[in-house]
Amino acid sequence: MRKPPQNPHDLSRHDLPDILGTIDEEVRQRFGEGEVADYIPALACVPKERFGMALVTLDGEVHAVGDAREPFSIQSISKVHTLTLGLEAVGDDLWKRLGREPSGDPFNSLIQLEHEKGIPRNPFINAGAMVVADVILSHYDQPEGALLHFMRGRSGNPEVGRDDEIWESERRSGYRNVALANFIRSFDNIENDVDAVLDFYYLQCALRMNCVDLARSAQFLAADGRCQASGKRVTSEEQATRINAIMLTCGTYDAAGDFAFHVGLPAKSGVGGGILAVVPSVMSLCVWSPALDEKGNSLLGGYALHRFTRMTGLSVF
Amino acid sequence: MRKPPQNPHDLSRHDLPDILGTIDEEVRQRFGEGEVADYIPALACVPKERFGMALVTLDGEVHAVGDAREPFSIQSISKVHTLTLGLEAVGDDLWKRLGREPSGDPFNSLIQLEHEKGIPRNPFINAGAMVVADVILSHYDQPEGALLHFMRGRSGNPEVGRDDEIWESERRSGYRNVALANFIRSFDNIENDVDAVLDFYYLQCALRMNCVDLARSAQFLAADGRCQASGKRVTSEEQATRINAIMLTCGTYDAAGDFAFHVGLPAKSGVGGGILAVVPSVMSLCVWSPALDEKGNSLLGGYALHRFTRMTGLSVF
Amino acid sequence: MRKPPQNPHDLSRHDLPDILGTIDEEVRQRFGEGEVADYIPALACVPKERFGMALVTLDGEVHAVGDAREPFSIQSISKVHTLTLGLEAVGDDLWKRLGREPSGDPFNSLIQLEHEKGIPRNPFINAGAMVVADVILSHYDQPEGALLHFMRGRSGNPEVGRDDEIWESERRSGYRNVALANFIRSFDNIENDVDAVLDFYYLQCALRMNCVDLARSAQFLAADGRCQASGKRVTSEEQATRINAIMLTCGTYDAAGDFAFHVGLPAKSGVGGGILAVVPSVMSLCVWSPALDEKGNSLLGGYALHRFTRMTGLSVF
Amino acid sequence: MRKPPQNPHDLSRHDLPDILGTIDEEVRQRFGEGEVADYIPALACVPKERFGMALVTLDGEVHAVGDAREPFSIQSISKVHTLTLGLEAVGDDLWKRLGREPSGDPFNSLIQLEHEKGIPRNPFINAGAMVVADVILSHYDQPEGALLHFMRGRSGNPEVGRDDEIWESERRSGYRNVALANFIRSFDNIENDVDAVLDFYYLQCALRMNCVDLARSAQFLAADGRCQASGKRVTSEEQATRINAIMLTCGTYDAAGDFAFHVGLPAKSGVGGGILAVVPSVMSLCVWSPALDEKGNSLLGGYALHRFTRMTGLSVF
Repeated sequence: MRKPPQNPHDLSRHDLPDILGTIDEEVRQRFGEGEVADYIPALACVPKERFGMALVTLDGEVHAVGDAREPFSIQSISKVHTLTLGLEAVGDDLWKRLGREPSGDPFNSLIQLEHEKGIPRNPFINAGAMVVADVILSHYDQPEGALLHFMRGRSGNPEVGRDDEIWESERRSGYRNVALANFIRSFDNIENDVDAVLDFYYLQCALRMNCVDLARSAQFLAADGRCQASGKRVTSEEQATRINAIMLTCGTYDAAGDFAFHVGLPAKSGVGGGILAVVPSVMSLCVWSPALDEKGNSLLGGYALHRFTRMTGLSVF
Repeated sequence: MRKPPQNPHDLSRHDLPDILGTIDEEVRQRFGEGEVADYIPALACVPKERFGMALVTLDGEVHAVGDAREPFSIQSISKVHTLTLGLEAVGDDLWKRLGREPSGDPFNSLIQLEHEKGIPRNPFINAGAMVVADVILSHYDQPEGALLHFMRGRSGNPEVGRDDEIWESERRSGYRNVALANFIRSFDNIENDVDAVLDFYYLQCALRMNCVDLARSAQFLAADGRCQASGKRVTSEEQATRINAIMLTCGTYDAAGDFAFHVGLPAKSGVGGGILAVVPSVMSLCVWSPALDEKGNSLLGGYALHRFTRMTGLSVF
Repeated sequence: MRKPPQNPHDLSRHDLPDILGTIDEEVRQRFGEGEVADYIPALACVPKERFGMALVTLDGEVHAVGDAREPFSIQSISKVHTLTLGLEAVGDDLWKRLGREPSGDPFNSLIQLEHEKGIPRNPFINAGAMVVADVILSHYDQPEGALLHFMRGRSGNPEVGRDDEIWESERRSGYRNVALANFIRSFDNIENDVDAVLDFYYLQCALRMNCVDLARSAQFLAADGRCQASGKRVTSEEQATRINAIMLTCGTYDAAGDFAFHVGLPAKSGVGGGILAVVPSVMSLCVWSPALDEKGNSLLGGYALHRFTRMTGLSVF
Repeated sequence: MRKPPQNPHDLSRHDLPDILGTIDEEVRQRFGEGEVADYIPALACVPKERFGMALVTLDGEVHAVGDAREPFSIQSISKVHTLTLGLEAVGDDLWKRLGREPSGDPFNSLIQLEHEKGIPRNPFINAGAMVVADVILSHYDQPEGALLHFMRGRSGNPEVGRDDEIWESERRSGYRNVALANFIRSFDNIENDVDAVLDFYYLQCALRMNCVDLARSAQFLAADGRCQASGKRVTSEEQATRINAIMLTCGTYDAAGDFAFHVGLPAKSGVGGGILAVVPSVMSLCVWSPALDEKGNSLLGGYALHRFTRMTGLSVF
């Protein structure tokens, strides 16, 4: 029964290059705003003047603009992919160890974790991603291999791998993450060795991918859980729907309400400046610009997505 | 560019009566679960074994089942309508006095209000609705008249009015609300007399409407801000989109994440057991069943909406 | 077994006037520091350059210096006296409705009250004093008369009474207090009419007394619960001990730890700039200087007490 | 000017053995109440039916009863001694990295630490003791040697040493402590290697001493900072006073207010069941009984101290 949106938003695909071009121009005029994440030393070196945007339609057509093929550190965007792996591993049992509510606190807060006895509020805060990592470690023989295989397969890019410098930098400075993992362990909500969980977590954060890779990697979320190229199921339709729901309510730290308001799409951001988004039944897309707003989301990336849904009418609302 | 969802969810409207009938049957088998709200004495008397559901498509077709024409106390559902009025009154200036983030705390919590110096997290917690009421009081000559006029006009039911018993009951027992309003006033985020704000707030909560009335009253939110019957604009397309976004992220107290996960629609619940929901560009709908779950949302109403989006594929995700 | 403190602190009473004189001189050189409370309009008008100090030994000898006979608004100091009345009324049953722990939050915080379901952390935060006021209202036929009688009797000053201007000012601006009282009422931890509780509370805060009055009014706390003049018991020895203990751990808002550290005496401060203190078995004393530090305690009053215990060795530690 | 307490509490030392004997009898009738700490596996094996009590007067006389010479794990009592060492190392600069306020939260809470950006509320919660340990590590060449030397010297027992089993047990299960230390490190309030800080911390907790050792070890706190045997100064009179003050306001986790109320002495408890207390200018004392109350303090130890101050009148209040 869903109908196409009304005029003035009827788009043919021929308009998409124009729309991306307009957005690219608008964004570049705002270069300089926001601040690059500085709590991971190696991230602090990335230049601010970068912007890329890529989208992949359901039939595999790719549109890209700007620095869409320059690899960057995907950081927390990887939480979408590990959530998918974790759900494949244990199904809805995952939710015995994790909530699905927005956190209302910064991404690395320990407060809610203490109130809720070691049950992270959702899989997209660091604590939640650690529990998901723990599930993956318990389930897969080669957890790191499984993650790389998934990422390379979904993105179609066999080169996806770890950025060693970021990885080292994060391991050496990640006191807050060590605190989080040990705290969860103290509530018995991590089963594996804490260091092994952290190593897996640092790996997922340190993956390097570009906007086109990431947009492709989430195509299954726009396509009811299927890989459109092969027709194979990546996850069930229901799980795809639910992952999108969690992205919308929890995907942008404690700015999820604002993001839904201004953009209106399921999205997951990372402190590397990337934001992955999904237009259910239509397309997946990814933007990247390293400078962040005060909530830790890419400032110009968020602006680009806002402009995109305003110009196309493709907000889910 | 939005495409209709794929098989097995292609629906013609002929299926809707069947779907509603199936849901009605399923729900009635679960009668008895949940608890009727008891903190407002007059609400505690409503029998649990009630269920109604109504939907209104964009062209005005109405489908209804069960107790869809039995009036009930709309309570917090009215926050959708007053938010619309408040935005019409002062536009985006409203957001200087209110946030748009999920609260992570129960609907009547004072904690976040203290941390955030009297700025309620969103317009759908009680504190936020009081600030919206204050805006309406400052803007409209006859604020109560304006609210009634809006409700009667949107629902097409000139009989919409106050349930005096509920209103009295709430006024006499609303210590928490008196606390909230005075607390906000202490931060200078209420301008009018505290008692006048509370009177307006108690009025909006005590309105009696049925599922059909409420579904109709939100049709403009499914229709890009327009009244479909008259073609007149109720609010701008952008505001309609944004109100839907806030409903999805903040409309069901601290269960918004779970609701997005299980239902996947913008929705606003009330402790009277009603839940109003929107399928953007498709329909508005309302369910009612008085027994609540532990988060204060209608237990069977939530279940009915869950079944509805699963059967129709009409989740926004 | 308690022995007098060792040299260099052996004092005869002949030294006390010298010590007070020295402190007075030191304090006056710091006039100008701190800020007068501004949240009660009528308090904001009090000049900062005032300092008084008075002490009363167990045998009734009075030593005073500076503005020790200038009346001021006693504000929260009255919580010591109402606690005594409340304990006389219902004994240890009082502690079913109140805690005895330091709050760790500002004096008018609602956060802990919400966490602890309407049980105030201690009788010296505003919420706790309101519960004590409620107990007094339930127990005494003429609660306001009982309070005035107690204050006049203990201080020996029949003129003790309400400062009407302060009282009016506080009633008109006390939104936070209205919020607190209604919030406690919503947890059923206030039995009487909320407005009656607040009226009593505003009366106790608006009493005008001077340093000599206040030092005398607490003599029974230094004297194991007895009135030294009449020999009559005001409260039991155990209750006197316990009230002193609560003053030390909870008497100076969220600076109690620091106060114990720097002063080392049971003490109760008020935003009018007074601080009442007790040296158990030795004397009671009161300082006054209107400018406050950032925690809401008299800045120079605290300094004077610090100097006093350092010069005399009369800290309880 | 301090005078001995009045009748009925005038004691000669001849009464002390009788008083201790009475308390011992009373306590043994309550054997069975409370629970032994179970979060450190090796502590969980200690039998509940133990009670010892020892006191040391200023001139070195020792009175002991029950299991006063049975060694136990001193755990958090060691925080008194490391605070003394830390203050000797850096003086009042210590307070730039630590507060002096009661915490209002359990001993190992991370919440307040997050609110206060890595500044622990006081030196007697775990987080605070870790910062003190860090100071000691930075200051002393042989920090562990310095601690052992201090403990053996103050107690007069050259056998004081580490309980290896407890130490191992705590190291292996201390996820919460690892979390705390890394969390503080993330705020740059730990300078040394986190593992080195934790090793020192586990050592201090795992020391084995008996009631007589511990009572002796704190004699200097009753004696204005001096070692009574040698006449040498252990710390300044002012520091001794202040350490006592912190013990009273912060020494018994979040039961400090209640402890002041019922006992009225500076005291520091440990989860091993010991409580060290000080009667300034009179004596130091230690009780031990392994079963704890719900706040983590020795249930019968607290009762013994309560009875002691009631029978002797030696509360500081």
